[in-house]
Amino acid sequence: MKGNFIWLRAVVQVAAALCHSLVQRCKVQRLKPFVCLCVFASSWLTASAQTWIWYPGDYEIWLSNEMQNRRTERGTFYPVFWKVDSHYPLVDFHKDFNLAQPETVTIRAEGRYSVKLDGRAFPGTPAAIEVPAGKHKINIKVFNQATPPTVFVKGTIIVSDSSWRVTFEDKEWIDETGKASDLSATVFKHAGSWNFNDAAATPSAYKLPVAPAAAVSAEKANGTLLVDFGREIFGFVKLHGVKGRGTISLYYGESREEALDTAASETFDRITIDQVKAGDTINPHSKALRYVNIVTDGDVQLDHASLLHEYARLEDKGDFRCNDEAINRIYDVSKYTLHLSTREFFVDGIKRDRWIWSGDAYQSYLMNYYLMNDNETVKRTTYALRGKDPVTGHINTIMDYTFYWFMGVYDYYLYSGDKDFLVQNYGRMKSLMDFVWNRRNKDGLLEGLPGDWIFIDWATGLSKEGEVSFEQLLFARGLETMALCAELAGRREDAMQYKTAAAELKQKLFSIYWSDTAKALVHSRVNGQPTKNVTRYANMFAIFFNYFNEQQKQAVKTSVLLNKNVPEITTPYMRFYELEALCALGEQGYVLKEMKDYWGGMLRLGATSFWEEYDPSKKGAEHYAMYGRKYGKSLCHAWGASPLYLLGKYYLGISPTAPGYTEYEVKPALGGLKWMEGKVPTPAGTIELYCSDKEIKITSPVGTGKLIIASKTKPVCKEGEIVSKGNNVYALTIEKDKKYSIRYQAM
Amino acid sequence: MKGNFIWLRAVVQVAAALCHSLVQRCKVQRLKPFVCLCVFASSWLTASAQTWIWYPGDYEIWLSNEMQNRRTERGTFYPVFWKVDSHYPLVDFHKDFNLAQPETVTIRAEGRYSVKLDGRAFPGTPAAIEVPAGKHKINIKVFNQATPPTVFVKGTIIVSDSSWRVTFEDKEWIDETGKASDLSATVFKHAGSWNFNDAAATPSAYKLPVAPAAAVSAEKANGTLLVDFGREIFGFVKLHGVKGRGTISLYYGESREEALDTAASETFDRITIDQVKAGDTINPHSKALRYVNIVTDGDVQLDHASLLHEYARLEDKGDFRCNDEAINRIYDVSKYTLHLSTREFFVDGIKRDRWIWSGDAYQSYLMNYYLMNDNETVKRTTYALRGKDPVTGHINTIMDYTFYWFMGVYDYYLYSGDKDFLVQNYGRMKSLMDFVWNRRNKDGLLEGLPGDWIFIDWATGLSKEGEVSFEQLLFARGLETMALCAELAGRREDAMQYKTAAAELKQKLFSIYWSDTAKALVHSRVNGQPTKNVTRYANMFAIFFNYFNEQQKQAVKTSVLLNKNVPEITTPYMRFYELEALCALGEQGYVLKEMKDYWGGMLRLGATSFWEEYDPSKKGAEHYAMYGRKYGKSLCHAWGASPLYLLGKYYLGISPTAPGYTEYEVKPALGGLKWMEGKVPTPAGTIELYCSDKEIKITSPVGTGKLIIASKTKPVCKEGEIVSKGNNVYALTIEKDKKYSIRYQAM
Repeated sequence: MKGNFIWLRAVVQVAAALCHSLVQRCKVQRLKPFVCLCVFASSWLTASAQTWIWYPGDYEIWLSNEMQNRRTERGTFYPVFWKVDSHYPLVDFHKDFNLAQPETVTIRAEGRYSVKLDGRAFPGTPAAIEVPAGKHKINIKVFNQATPPTVFVKGTIIVSDSSWRVTFEDKEWIDETGKASDLSATVFKHAGSWNFNDAAATPSAYKLPVAPAAAVSAEKANGTLLVDFGREIFGFVKLHGVKGRGTISLYYGESREEALDTAASETFDRITIDQVKAGDTINPHSKALRYVNIVTDGDVQLDHASLLHEYARLEDKGDFRCNDEAINRIYDVSKYTLHLSTREFFVDGIKRDRWIWSGDAYQSYLMNYYLMNDNETVKRTTYALRGKDPVTGHINTIMDYTFYWFMGVYDYYLYSGDKDFLVQNYGRMKSLMDFVWNRRNKDGLLEGLPGDWIFIDWATGLSKEGEVSFEQLLFARGLETMALCAELAGRREDAMQYKTAAAELKQKLFSIYWSDTAKALVHSRVNGQPTKNVTRYANMFAIFFNYFNEQQKQAVKTSVLLNKNVPEITTPYMRFYELEALCALGEQGYVLKEMKDYWGGMLRLGATSFWEEYDPSKKGAEHYAMYGRKYGKSLCHAWGASPLYLLGKYYLGISPTAPGYTEYEVKPALGGLKWMEGKVPTPAGTIELYCSDKEIKITSPVGTGKLIIASKTKPVCKEGEIVSKGNNVYALTIEKDKKYSIRYQAM
Repeated sequence: MKGNFIWLRAVVQVAAALCHSLVQRCKVQRLKPFVCLCVFASSWLTASAQTWIWYPGDYEIWLSNEMQNRRTERGTFYPVFWKVDSHYPLVDFHKDFNLAQPETVTIRAEGRYSVKLDGRAFPGTPAAIEVPAGKHKINIKVFNQATPPTVFVKGTIIVSDSSWRVTFEDKEWIDETGKASDLSATVFKHAGSWNFNDAAATPSAYKLPVAPAAAVSAEKANGTLLVDFGREIFGFVKLHGVKGRGTISLYYGESREEALDTAASETFDRITIDQVKAGDTINPHSKALRYVNIVTDGDVQLDHASLLHEYARLEDKGDFRCNDEAINRIYDVSKYTLHLSTREFFVDGIKRDRWIWSGDAYQSYLMNYYLMNDNETVKRTTYALRGKDPVTGHINTIMDYTFYWFMGVYDYYLYSGDKDFLVQNYGRMKSLMDFVWNRRNKDGLLEGLPGDWIFIDWATGLSKEGEVSFEQLLFARGLETMALCAELAGRREDAMQYKTAAAELKQKLFSIYWSDTAKALVHSRVNGQPTKNVTRYANMFAIFFNYFNEQQKQAVKTSVLLNKNVPEITTPYMRFYELEALCALGEQGYVLKEMKDYWGGMLRLGATSFWEEYDPSKKGAEHYAMYGRKYGKSLCHAWGASPLYLLGKYYLGISPTAPGYTEYEVKPALGGLKWMEGKVPTPAGTIELYCSDKEIKITSPVGTGKLIIASKTKPVCKEGEIVSKGNNVYALTIEKDKKYSIRYQAM
């Protein structure tokens, strides 16, 4: 059967290619009957938008469960500790079509299925149906408990794609008179899809691609082989020339020390060997490593080891280059770090959890918008984090992480312009906010209830007691986000309620936590009394949330951000926001130095990817410890890659001000660099910018941009009109597909 | 490995048997060391309460999905049209133990798992662990998306059973200081279980048992073989002596007409044959049939056919016999009907849907309490019907069916005394009632919103418009049930609220629908105006709900129940309640005649099981039609078996008045019979009763009963004191495990 299909396909492909060229000629020569035939054959292949579809979010949740439950800790299965949801086992897919010509439609499904045309079922589970010309409604209903119900439909006009509507309860009963039920209350969603455009590429069989990677060196000792891949990497160890009987143990190390410390390495795998003739063996589990320490027992022997590097195939669209090679190196290692931590989903890091953490993912989204700009990974991660109703706990059990999720949905809309995703998810946004809303205390504030994890950051001695200002601040931002999204989803009444609630909470935030003495938001309120404790978190977020007035902003810069007495941040996670706040205050020069110092510091210690935490005061292997374990720290952590975002948003200075870059602003800031150039992805292509202290060049394929620059003299541009904004600030409107060159004198 | 295990088991079994007797002797002879050894070996088998366990409801929902989605209609897959839920893919099981001796504990799981002892994980996925003496907490965490996570644990003291606690979100994180999360808010449930007491009997592999059944006759014609099994039955057709190449079609018939009508039979299967040497073939799908019409094509030949009867292995505990053989026959066919319709769950009927319908299941529960009294099928069915949160529609989409579900939970508690099930389900009860509560209209009444099916009964011309009285009546009963259950679950505040709401609704019910003219509750209110339409439904339910005062009750008997002008009921489904109402009014004589007429009518037409609908005015094959299809009617429908309930509850007259028959009443009513005798199951065994118009004999293994009889003269009983209640009514208290014999003179 399959053989026949391939044969048929090949014939049709050749025929279609012939037809395509014929169509062109036919159009010219007005050979109508011929055209019809050829359009048919041609469109069979070229119009093929067909793709596997499913209930939106269901495949994403299922796949995330598969991925997240691959974690092991020293050989022991280590699952997540929050609620894991499941797909709907029964889903109905439908679409209305209007055919000029009858057509044959092939149907594939993962699950047991039935097919209806205009309400009438075909016998059995048909692999193909004939659809006559005219208006028709096709329904395919699929049942599958093990993996998500999916369908793949391919005709000429009738093809499965995200325009199909789906429901998990069709309520299609008939009463005793044969009267059909009223479907007006049925909630239909647009189908979910990705890039499974081939009937054979079933979604449940999806695996990340692999590519062979060779080791850079290997040291053999008695019964052991220490292999170095020269850099942090992820994949399946391949053992070459294996023979004998016994066990091969693979001790992975992000550091040489970890790989050699077989009693303490965070991960290992064991393979049983019973092989007379030498052959190759691939370890079935993919792991993070730079080193692998291969220990054999029995009479097992092996020749050498390589790796099948497992990765997500995502193209870089953004770029950054400047005169400072140290910064360029930081940018490159950031890119590599983000790529390694971007798998089926945006994960935290690659050695230990490989889980989707909302706080970590939120930063990956932002970096992604300046590098790969892959919408699909953002959407998948968003679905996976949210799971399904009912909401029984915070996302990842962490209160702060719930709020990052809301912010992530809105940001995605802003960067991508994809309103449909937001509208489809409005219900899930609302029920999550309902959960939060119902957990407020008598003063309308949030404090940690049993089962809530108040995370904020990994920091010694950080108080989580009482009502923490940072959580209220995120709550306010969450409510503002809900107000925006409710408006976009056409829920006016909700929008008004959220807007009011956000305004009230912001007012409360300042009246409770703002200290005129400390010139800062204090950390928390305990037993109704604001503490005197000042931390960076709420203060730095309030800057780029624009919650402070100008006076407060400048005060906080000195009293908190640049104040060495306020406890320093030791994770790149919160350094992300700290440096963002400073950039938002125009401190690009200071931030550049910090970057070279902090990220540069890791590179000087030999890092090939950026870490979960970095404390410059530590020495040697101390750097690898965390959570009370010698090698507990992840040396490749997505949140380590924030220079991608900072350099794109605050140095190239490009960011959308309306959804999908229909409007955007460009505020280049060299921060002490002589020159920089780069690309920032948009839905329509990349905005390209070159900037030195004398010249700016920019082209954009999208929307209307506003270039804003400070210049000692009035800038000169032949391609557009420079408008003075006073105080040496000038603006230029950037139209799409036009090259601008501006001469100016940087301040 | 398996061989070894069986061998080991056999040895230990023998050893245990020896030990058991030795233990007895040891106890007498005080041979301590010996005793210890023997107690160990003996308890290994005899104390083995170990069973596979899971998250309560999850296996039940999964299994019901498997069962319900086996429906086909003429070869086409025909899934349900309501939301289908799924199991939690990740579940944590735990229990605390205190061991006097160390022990070895074997562990099996369906899914990937980890095992912790006192919070410390064992390496890998251990098949056995050693547990030292002392206090210990064992956690097993299992991940499985395809089938429900389950575990089986077998040590000496440490065994898996329903006393284990389970959760789907353990929230067991640690913070940076190593401090564990606060689990005080984690909701732990008691594990679900059934009878999978053997490690090899994995729950997901469960299949109903089968037994061979021979045909009673067969007619061969050209290329066809019509086989008659002599009675309605269910199973896999087995074809004997099959050879040749081609197709065998199996056209099933509950009637001869249906089997022969290959163009219209409701179900068929097709088997592809390619076999040189004659052999046997079993059709992989089990179906309902009395007849199977076997049609071959090509050169396919077969010798004969038999059946593998697929059934639920449930013992009859209840019984009924009387002097009237027609009633005995009705009782026997009712028994057979209920057995056929009791499969993995209580299903509606066996030919068509084989679905779990709440209204049908509710009646099966009540019949079950008088026949098999199997708690497990009731619990499974209750879980399957309810599904999971969030509630997005009525149970089976039908408003009335939602309310039967509440009543079913309470009845189960009353008949079984199993409070734990009710308490475990209180959350699911509450969220379902919240769904209903939020759908009330401005007057606090329920009317059909889009997506709601107002079913009531299959009856031509029955209005579903406006606010139907029957639905408000069931709503009131649902609220009363919730008040009772909230009280039992320790939710005092909820209980008060439900009580108040129920009282208000009842008051509204009578003020809106009671008509002094019609002397009845009218059918509905449309546009704020009560209609003049009187139907039986609300009136008959109000009788056995005890909502009428005595005057109304007697009025309704005449104006509705015995009034031929009020449209008659044509389904055994509503006849169940109609006859129950009449029995509750003491009309056992009338009801006995109705039974012989209506159920006897089906028997006279050759029924071997009772039907979905029976209209005596129809002729011949007309009886088989329904839903506009020639053979649409189910000829084996659970709701056809109601005489089981009526004869047990209203003739033997036995029913619990306190949970689990701790208190019960016995009100025998011969209804014209000369004598009757029977058994009614209770959690502790059966109550046995003989009753003629002169003598009553009764024994009970449980609680305290109240025998209430009407007698022309004061009854005589040597075993207890007869108390006169006036009006020729006498009472006798029945103590357990005592035989009572009463002489009296029936009125």
